[in-house]
Amino acid sequence: MFVYPQIYRKLRRGPQVILPKDIGIIIAYSGADKGSVCVDAGTGSGWLAVGLARVCKEVYSYDVRPEFTAIAQKNKDLLGLENLVLKTGDVKKKIEEKDVDIVTLDMPESEKALKNVKKALKGGGRVVSYIPHTEQVKKYVQTLEKLGFLDIHIIEVMVREMMVRQEGTRPSTKGIWHTAYLVFAVKQ
Amino acid sequence: MFVYPQIYRKLRRGPQVILPKDIGIIIAYSGADKGSVCVDAGTGSGWLAVGLARVCKEVYSYDVRPEFTAIAQKNKDLLGLENLVLKTGDVKKKIEEKDVDIVTLDMPESEKALKNVKKALKGGGRVVSYIPHTEQVKKYVQTLEKLGFLDIHIIEVMVREMMVRQEGTRPSTKGIWHTAYLVFAVKQ
Amino acid sequence: MFVYPQIYRKLRRGPQVILPKDIGIIIAYSGADKGSVCVDAGTGSGWLAVGLARVCKEVYSYDVRPEFTAIAQKNKDLLGLENLVLKTGDVKKKIEEKDVDIVTLDMPESEKALKNVKKALKGGGRVVSYIPHTEQVKKYVQTLEKLGFLDIHIIEVMVREMMVRQEGTRPSTKGIWHTAYLVFAVKQ
Amino acid sequence: MFVYPQIYRKLRRGPQVILPKDIGIIIAYSGADKGSVCVDAGTGSGWLAVGLARVCKEVYSYDVRPEFTAIAQKNKDLLGLENLVLKTGDVKKKIEEKDVDIVTLDMPESEKALKNVKKALKGGGRVVSYIPHTEQVKKYVQTLEKLGFLDIHIIEVMVREMMVRQEGTRPSTKGIWHTAYLVFAVKQ
Repeated sequence: MFVYPQIYRKLRRGPQVILPKDIGIIIAYSGADKGSVCVDAGTGSGWLAVGLARVCKEVYSYDVRPEFTAIAQKNKDLLGLENLVLKTGDVKKKIEEKDVDIVTLDMPESEKALKNVKKALKGGGRVVSYIPHTEQVKKYVQTLEKLGFLDIHIIEVMVREMMVRQEGTRPSTKGIWHTAYLVFAVKQ
Repeated sequence: MFVYPQIYRKLRRGPQVILPKDIGIIIAYSGADKGSVCVDAGTGSGWLAVGLARVCKEVYSYDVRPEFTAIAQKNKDLLGLENLVLKTGDVKKKIEEKDVDIVTLDMPESEKALKNVKKALKGGGRVVSYIPHTEQVKKYVQTLEKLGFLDIHIIEVMVREMMVRQEGTRPSTKGIWHTAYLVFAVKQ
Repeated sequence: MFVYPQIYRKLRRGPQVILPKDIGIIIAYSGADKGSVCVDAGTGSGWLAVGLARVCKEVYSYDVRPEFTAIAQKNKDLLGLENLVLKTGDVKKKIEEKDVDIVTLDMPESEKALKNVKKALKGGGRVVSYIPHTEQVKKYVQTLEKLGFLDIHIIEVMVREMMVRQEGTRPSTKGIWHTAYLVFAVKQ
Repeated sequence: MFVYPQIYRKLRRGPQVILPKDIGIIIAYSGADKGSVCVDAGTGSGWLAVGLARVCKEVYSYDVRPEFTAIAQKNKDLLGLENLVLKTGDVKKKIEEKDVDIVTLDMPESEKALKNVKKALKGGGRVVSYIPHTEQVKKYVQTLEKLGFLDIHIIEVMVREMMVRQEGTRPSTKGIWHTAYLVFAVKQ
């Protein structure tokens, strides 16, 4: 299956990673570019942090669990990404960076980080959260609204593979139907 | 609908553009990054060229139709992308660049450009074609195989929007079911 | 669009109907057949009631709103379905039928009908609910579990159209992404 | 996974069967009902033949391979379907029934059966073909057009499962992305 394109195949992974399909959509829909300064939490195996660092100026990635940061550190070294800073810390308590362009959240109760996210983002800055369950999506969206975030959109990304073979052209029989919902919003 | 995230909403568009959902997946699955040199054809309204130029080192975008290059020029100027070079020309006849990392093709009979693409790409370089119809997908894939390209994968990207509203949380009723197939391959 | 196959095109419709895609899956997954006795609520425009009556032995369809029953009555007459009985009444208060094979529910707070549904169903009988929002799905499923229903499954049905045209074969660009979740369960 | 609802779980299956998701849509979109006389080919394990026989008046199911008919015979007996007639024969050569309401085709080169299908169907009768590959879809549709069939529509059916669990409500991670295209058409 073409779930892991070339660059991601060499990366190490812990129990769960954000897949390239979601990383690509996060990049395109958040407007990430070579000038972007990003904050990411939680790091996990670092796939999203690495994916962002490959196209952005600076990425600061937080995790409360140092054992995950170790896997992410290996992935950072593997790709030689000096603009990725791995930090141990809890963005619900504090985000040290200011005037940030993009914040990405993949953590339980990500809505509890939104006050700090709002302080860290510059005006027009964007926050993206990766949320598997509809209940958390709802809580998170309601918190975004309460805090005055704008342009709130929730999407899910489905990538289906097609096969061209001797016997004919057809979609692949099985595939991934769901990873998580992606929630995008903009700070006023 | 969240088909056009913020950065793309200000861009001009001709009759057809490659949507951000496909641009994001092209970036993630081709491994595009800040060091990448890309060739793109045809330019069209330049959305893909612009999307690539925002995250890559250099993008050279060809179109045989100068009237399209004019729209793309406006989009380039709007975003101030000096690393995007718009060229009038036919990649089926000639690609001037060498040692290219990524080639993207959105044109009829894109398989006829593959010989030149192979010459332009460096080893391990990747080519992506955006193809609406299954018949062209098949011809294109067969040409890739004949020319010795590896790691050939065909996907389609579906982005579905969810709504969180007073009356409840549910997927959006209608949406985009298909734009084109994306075919990825690697030069040996 | 092929959302309305032939037989349904002549039917009248109020503001909302259950589409043939969902009717077909309800028939196949509930095991409806020529021997089945069904209870349906709320009738609405009667599309599901009519769809069931065409393949089942008897269908008793309840609605609390007599103005809807009038549309359903026209659809019943149009197809000459004498085995469809349209009733004004609230299944949350009472279901008169006993030893029923299948109950279908398309109504707000359908979980409040489940106690009566359980009494009306025979052992091994099945209940299907058509529910647009995830919040109601959850409440409904929790009530099913509390009442000892088995084999609980929630699905959504997506039907995508393909086009074969002069210029090539491709999926239709736009389509219906969501109508409702279908929740199936079996009485012990 | 809820791919096999209750009634189908007890059926025997050979290497490939038409799944309930496709059977349900075939029933709803072909307009099958208690008065319908159907011809089906090839029988295979008989799941579609059985699914139709449960809701229709009579089903005549052909297969050229007697070893498949044996599995189908067991499924027929299991459900006690006396209105299902299993026949060894090739519908490309001959269909014995006349004034048929519905013909269903699941066989290689189903387009070669269409002349006989047209003779067997009554005016307004419908033919449905189950076709895995896009190439055969195209050939089949072109033959339908040549023979004057009307109201030609091609669809694919995707059924996605949702999970309501302690940790939250979300779509199932993996699932079936493709079985076959369903092509519907009407005889003038």
